Amino acid sequence: MTETYESRTEHGSAILARREPIVYEDGQYARALKAEQLADYERDGFIMLENLFSAEEVAALLGEVHDLSQEGEKRNWNEAIREPGSNKVRSVFRVHSLSEKIGALARDPRLLNVARQILGSETYLHQSRVNFKPGFHGKEFYWHSDFETWHVEDGMPAMRALSCSILLTDNVSSNGPLMLIPGSHRQFIACQGVTPDSHYKESLRKQEYGVPDPLSLELLAEQGGIYQAVAPAGSVVFFDCNVMHGSSSNITPWPRANVFMVYNSVHNTLKTPRYGLAPRPEYIATRDGFEMLLPEQEAKAKSV
Amino acid sequence: MTETYESRTEHGSAILARREPIVYEDGQYARALKAEQLADYERDGFIMLENLFSAEEVAALLGEVHDLSQEGEKRNWNEAIREPGSNKVRSVFRVHSLSEKIGALARDPRLLNVARQILGSETYLHQSRVNFKPGFHGKEFYWHSDFETWHVEDGMPAMRALSCSILLTDNVSSNGPLMLIPGSHRQFIACQGVTPDSHYKESLRKQEYGVPDPLSLELLAEQGGIYQAVAPAGSVVFFDCNVMHGSSSNITPWPRANVFMVYNSVHNTLKTPRYGLAPRPEYIATRDGFEMLLPEQEAKAKSV
Repeated sequence: MTETYESRTEHGSAILARREPIVYEDGQYARALKAEQLADYERDGFIMLENLFSAEEVAALLGEVHDLSQEGEKRNWNEAIREPGSNKVRSVFRVHSLSEKIGALARDPRLLNVARQILGSETYLHQSRVNFKPGFHGKEFYWHSDFETWHVEDGMPAMRALSCSILLTDNVSSNGPLMLIPGSHRQFIACQGVTPDSHYKESLRKQEYGVPDPLSLELLAEQGGIYQAVAPAGSVVFFDCNVMHGSSSNITPWPRANVFMVYNSVHNTLKTPRYGLAPRPEYIATRDGFEMLLPEQEAKAKSV
Repeated sequence: MTETYESRTEHGSAILARREPIVYEDGQYARALKAEQLADYERDGFIMLENLFSAEEVAALLGEVHDLSQEGEKRNWNEAIREPGSNKVRSVFRVHSLSEKIGALARDPRLLNVARQILGSETYLHQSRVNFKPGFHGKEFYWHSDFETWHVEDGMPAMRALSCSILLTDNVSSNGPLMLIPGSHRQFIACQGVTPDSHYKESLRKQEYGVPDPLSLELLAEQGGIYQAVAPAGSVVFFDCNVMHGSSSNITPWPRANVFMVYNSVHNTLKTPRYGLAPRPEYIATRDGFEMLLPEQEAKAKSV
């Protein structure tokens, strides 16, 4: 297999053009987004759908993820990642199987059909997680392309995956909302520096590898600007696996809690990681026995 | 002297009502702001004046402060404060006397007359500094009231001082702009914890004392919201010495550089610090031989 997207070598950083489509099968595989919404997604690499979930649904999910975070902290789950320099839970992974409610959310047609439409195929969950950015002391997430990590560390072959972030609290411009660089999904930023084995335990707390260089970031931001994903709770932002994103710290009293679902095309399952790295655990990257997703109704119909 | 604003004791945190006016002498001492602008300042504790300085003036000042920061780093000035965990200059103090251009800025009628009008008297420079928040790795400044520090550590008697921040780069919502809590200047948040001597060297890098408690912050933010001082370079925000403010980290490629001038009323000169603390150095808090400020033209006329 030739390496299309080489990264983390001693060669230094580089900007490579994306080889894959952004919207697959001309967006005909499922019907969820309108043509102009698909065009926005194709141009920017993301789309914000405001108020996709009701206040009641959000309240139920928020209760659920708080329970998960407390449970994870108490029981010292591997899935519960702590803040750097503190014992506070920053993320919980594999939430779709830790919680039935969130498992159902993963199959909710409002999310899943957007993913199927954009990826032009059936999908499965590559990863699910909830990110907490507590008030007062929420830490930043530095800029990164998810695909860069998934390609190198998980062996994801192509850019045929997307994330959606379901906002469980109001995301305002001051409480460290997700920031995305429009158009950055069209370029792959090869990062410098070789990755040590098992570094994922630390990298989920604080990134050190797969960090894009300042010059490339400057270029991307000059070209596309920076979009802050500011929207009320219940909104969902869908974003391409290669869009450059990050978020600032949160010193406001207002916590930020978002659930992330990563949908991958069933035609894009994981191969071996690069550079002889050991595969990351299942709760970070589904590999053994992934389950094809179908919208809830269809899944129910099939299970009868 | 009885203590009106007790802070940093073992008593715990408390919210005390402000005793002093916000605008002194009914805003009649000088003419700079209009009545409605004064009313905004009185209500919110700050006012943003957009595009007060021209692009040429800003470019000249920006060049000057960059020179100062490099000089300060090279010569290891006391006035040059480094980022926590790095050698990068985060702030340079006493810039009005390190640079003639900035000395002139301190007497610019566009700044000084606003200060004289609000404080209802002649003023002097309690402190001047430039804050750099570099791109990519600019660190946050946690919430604080300047007066709390100046009262405890410098012996400033009353709330009769103000700061102005002259924006030398565009401050946007994503690059860690100054955040202020409207209305917070009407309440004094007494902080918990005794202050060790000479802690200012560390506190300018990273705050540990004079930190307001989360509950009080939550209350203030619920009452007043959070205002981000977002404006183009050349704009100036004037803010009361007791308004609660801070700023988030900056991971964007866009640096943030602001000059701060702190004007104090000549009727409010410093007394001894609280709790037997040693006075902080002159470059942080003017004490010996402060110089009454007059607008540049008047100063020139008098010097003839």
